[in-house]
Amino acid sequence: MQNWEVVQGNLASPRGFRGAAVAARIKKTQGELDLGLLVCDTHAATTAGLFTTNLVAAAPVLVSKQNLAESHGRCRALLVNSGNANACTGQQGLHTARESARAAAKLLNVHADQVLLASTGVIGVALEPGLISKQLPALVQKLSTENASALARAIMTTDRIVKSCVLRSEVSGKPVHLAGIAKGAGMIHPRMATMLSFVTTDALIGPRTLHNLLRAAVDASFNRITVDGDTSTNDTALAWASGLAAVGVRPGNASWAWFLEGLTQLCQCLAKMIAQDGEGAKKLVRVEVQGARKPSDAERAARAIANSPLVKTAIAGSDPNWGRILCAAGYSGAVFNPDKAEIRVNDLLLCRDGVDAGFDEAAARKVLDGKELVLRVDLHQGNASAQIWTCDLTHDYITINASYRT
Amino acid sequence: MQNWEVVQGNLASPRGFRGAAVAARIKKTQGELDLGLLVCDTHAATTAGLFTTNLVAAAPVLVSKQNLAESHGRCRALLVNSGNANACTGQQGLHTARESARAAAKLLNVHADQVLLASTGVIGVALEPGLISKQLPALVQKLSTENASALARAIMTTDRIVKSCVLRSEVSGKPVHLAGIAKGAGMIHPRMATMLSFVTTDALIGPRTLHNLLRAAVDASFNRITVDGDTSTNDTALAWASGLAAVGVRPGNASWAWFLEGLTQLCQCLAKMIAQDGEGAKKLVRVEVQGARKPSDAERAARAIANSPLVKTAIAGSDPNWGRILCAAGYSGAVFNPDKAEIRVNDLLLCRDGVDAGFDEAAARKVLDGKELVLRVDLHQGNASAQIWTCDLTHDYITINASYRT
Repeated sequence: MQNWEVVQGNLASPRGFRGAAVAARIKKTQGELDLGLLVCDTHAATTAGLFTTNLVAAAPVLVSKQNLAESHGRCRALLVNSGNANACTGQQGLHTARESARAAAKLLNVHADQVLLASTGVIGVALEPGLISKQLPALVQKLSTENASALARAIMTTDRIVKSCVLRSEVSGKPVHLAGIAKGAGMIHPRMATMLSFVTTDALIGPRTLHNLLRAAVDASFNRITVDGDTSTNDTALAWASGLAAVGVRPGNASWAWFLEGLTQLCQCLAKMIAQDGEGAKKLVRVEVQGARKPSDAERAARAIANSPLVKTAIAGSDPNWGRILCAAGYSGAVFNPDKAEIRVNDLLLCRDGVDAGFDEAAARKVLDGKELVLRVDLHQGNASAQIWTCDLTHDYITINASYRT
Repeated sequence: MQNWEVVQGNLASPRGFRGAAVAARIKKTQGELDLGLLVCDTHAATTAGLFTTNLVAAAPVLVSKQNLAESHGRCRALLVNSGNANACTGQQGLHTARESARAAAKLLNVHADQVLLASTGVIGVALEPGLISKQLPALVQKLSTENASALARAIMTTDRIVKSCVLRSEVSGKPVHLAGIAKGAGMIHPRMATMLSFVTTDALIGPRTLHNLLRAAVDASFNRITVDGDTSTNDTALAWASGLAAVGVRPGNASWAWFLEGLTQLCQCLAKMIAQDGEGAKKLVRVEVQGARKPSDAERAARAIANSPLVKTAIAGSDPNWGRILCAAGYSGAVFNPDKAEIRVNDLLLCRDGVDAGFDEAAARKVLDGKELVLRVDLHQGNASAQIWTCDLTHDYITINASYRT
């Protein structure tokens, strides 16, 4: 088995997939892509999904969960729109979602429960049913491997960068692909932080195994980023396996670790793009807590630091305010002795034994001016560690969110 | 017993107290008040204190907790400074704090453990010991009932408004006073949200009773505000009773409810000023959740809404984005059926049965332009309710916190 390497491509780089996107006027700006379709052409395809833990789940989330269960993890298509989340839209929203799935299923000649849905955009505004159904024939017409590239753009809302990644490996001379796209910039939180993420592969994987692999990869990636601490109503991560590479992945087999490594690498790549593209963000920050007594202590401290508005604004201002970092660890619930804590930004020591390490202020500011930073906190209490990706908190976050609906 | 009424005054309006403040150059700007002293001149005075739950507790917090315990709740003075929090300053910071308390005790002719300390300002920077000791004789010299007014200003950092409140009542013709000051604008969080708050009264109250009363009042006031979700290293609430009004307050007595009502009114008044003065805030927002099955559900939902950056930025932009409010309640952990939820801003209905109520957008924006707002969420599941005060999240929060140390 070879290592996974990054290659050019799209969601249809794994064999068995086609995709397309159109402008359906769900977004306000005319001509902007806002409706996408991904299909898997093999009957043997398997699917796994993870969804928001928010009690207020959007209609497409409810429909997708149901269809995933009823098809026993054997779905064939994903219909996704941006510009309207179809959340807080009641029975009418649910009806619109089900009708869209049904219409797509009919055109694709698959069962209605084999179509999954995802939506992102404004909450609480009715999604006009006609907008989607009107475009469906044209969308199906456009399906191809090349047109699958448009999907990454069609799911963007406040995103500034297209989030797409494709990996390739080989097993006994047989090439295997993993591809993924994601969207997300605001309302991002560690408890299922994906907003939307879709992964395809041509490896051969049973639905249950695919679910377990997706769960493990998401826990190490999308569940480790935070932008603003808000858990969305629409968070969805889906994985699709066509099996056409004829390379099987089974638990208790060497292929498991190999595939999980690739899937985790893919998801971390997409997750970091989300943190980097956090609304208004100028800097990608990795918070790394080590030397904790227990993994849960490390994770608590890392999450509190990554979520603290005071830490995030200090980073925006290139202010080496390590006291705020120690303070956040202090209220996180993690157990440690503050007098032993050590804090670095990249390799520059800011705090030793819980007090100022006597660093050079100008040098620290220069380091903090970088676009990618690592905040390293060593608690010196044990061997457990954890990392979380976040971003700085800037004026633009406020600007974007104070007028999102208008 | 009369109702409590708001009157003019300061911390020395209750008999038995004197105060003063000076500019000690702990703050960067010359001439700004940054060192204050409050003394109670009666031997029988009782004291109660509540402190931050942050594991990283500042030196003055550690010293005050110890002195409060060792004096059995019978302290005589409070020495407070702004401009430097004396937090994350290690053994040296602890030494400076203890020496300051000792020097003040000597000048005031009380025991060293009868002096309490409080500090607020930048974290992780050594507090120069000489700055305080040099000013102590002048500070003691200035002590008077009039000069106690300066204390409210001396504890301000990024605060824009002076937070002070005095109440008066009568029992059998004997006047009783309650006075309080507070500071706090950033790093404000429900888990002991005070930053600093000092309360005086001339009622006659045992130390243990005073502690229980303070705990109850703080739970209904300072622990119900949030600005940015950060719990500070220095949060401190102190109450002092001189007993000179000769009106006793005891548990199981009518005086208990009467006094608690006044103390709660006083603390809520100060707490609301803190939320209103939240860093960069333009609007004071009361989040009121009712119709919950259990009080804990109501509180969880109210706290999540009040803490959501997306809700707070929407309010800053006068955007009636009720979907974000429902979404925050949804991830709060509260148990409810979103399809029954009703959301109002002041009296204007935005959402009914979990969907858009068909409100007039312009009318909603006009309501949201107000300086004091109530977000009312009715879950229609039961009879429990809770309220939390918060503020909007604006550009100025970022500006203030991106460059706080410089």
